[in-house]
Amino acid sequence: MKASARNQFVGTVTEVLIGAVNAEVHVGLKGGETIVASITKESVEKLAIKTGIEVIALVKAPQIIIVTDFGGYRLSARNQLQGMITQVKPGAVNAEVDIELKGGEQVAATVTNDSVEALGLSKGKPATAVFKAGAVILAVAG
Amino acid sequence: MKASARNQFVGTVTEVLIGAVNAEVHVGLKGGETIVASITKESVEKLAIKTGIEVIALVKAPQIIIVTDFGGYRLSARNQLQGMITQVKPGAVNAEVDIELKGGEQVAATVTNDSVEALGLSKGKPATAVFKAGAVILAVAG
Amino acid sequence: MKASARNQFVGTVTEVLIGAVNAEVHVGLKGGETIVASITKESVEKLAIKTGIEVIALVKAPQIIIVTDFGGYRLSARNQLQGMITQVKPGAVNAEVDIELKGGEQVAATVTNDSVEALGLSKGKPATAVFKAGAVILAVAG
Repeated sequence: MKASARNQFVGTVTEVLIGAVNAEVHVGLKGGETIVASITKESVEKLAIKTGIEVIALVKAPQIIIVTDFGGYRLSARNQLQGMITQVKPGAVNAEVDIELKGGEQVAATVTNDSVEALGLSKGKPATAVFKAGAVILAVAG
Repeated sequence: MKASARNQFVGTVTEVLIGAVNAEVHVGLKGGETIVASITKESVEKLAIKTGIEVIALVKAPQIIIVTDFGGYRLSARNQLQGMITQVKPGAVNAEVDIELKGGEQVAATVTNDSVEALGLSKGKPATAVFKAGAVILAVAG
Repeated sequence: MKASARNQFVGTVTEVLIGAVNAEVHVGLKGGETIVASITKESVEKLAIKTGIEVIALVKAPQIIIVTDFGGYRLSARNQLQGMITQVKPGAVNAEVDIELKGGEQVAATVTNDSVEALGLSKGKPATAVFKAGAVILAVAG
């Protein structure tokens, strides 16, 4: 698959919760992290998504928030992946920040240059990539 | 209406599914495509959204993923609009890619320059604009 | 908390609506505005979100649409914050637009340069920052 989403995580479905209109799908990554996706019930049915199948979780870089210090706060976002910054690519207004997770997966986040400065984002520093379940698209083979 | 959302599709509501908190609204475009919007149940009620009324579906360019080759995969995203790339405007980190649908509507997507290169995005090539139902805002007259 | 989300609104929870999978949380700001967040039911439970507690509502700048003229239209987006533009920072493709609300809060939105031109966005002009409930992440202390 050739898709522009910078983040494409391969994993296995570990849980599916069905609501009236929406559903929540849990995807286990090889490094041990879990990604939670909120998709419509109809997509779960059409794509026959169920526990045990392999999927790719796609997340666009602008959907991801970087947190360097929680300061005692907990976030409602279901996806909070801890890692180490491997690269900061500054642009005119926005920068791309790459974070490597413990399992080796790379996460790319687009943040403003102001945030890069305010948070002191630079190579080698720890950071958490935070995104909502609603930001995740699932891809299923076949 | 003057709104910054690059994508503003005029269409007619063809279906409304109501859940406990959220609702799903289907909007038929003149070119034959359907756009699916996930909005709250309260918005459906306040805006009196029902089958047959005309609406505008707004989608921000950074919410859209471009797929050039599905490679046998199917995506959970409810909106997958096929077209032809009419323009690629590169920036420092991000680029804007314009896709023309068969019905003539234009779709603008913001992707990274890296994705433009990796996918070989250029004028005249076919591409699919993919976005989640949750990325769509509906506008109703009156 | 040090997070890259440009918009971090401090407020108090005024209402919590629970659905099958998702929930809707209303947050009152000091200036009188209300921000509506759509988060999963599980997050409401884990973070013990209930009426009266203080939270921070985080919203990324690229999630926000700027409307300068509704032209008789009403929008499904639950968050529509009126204010005055205090700054426009143009980049290569995108610009950051800052809007000050009546209560003094600042809202940062990322829009394309084309939208800045098309809408005539400039310092001192009134504008409404529009974003979906699904774009909001809540942070809770402790």
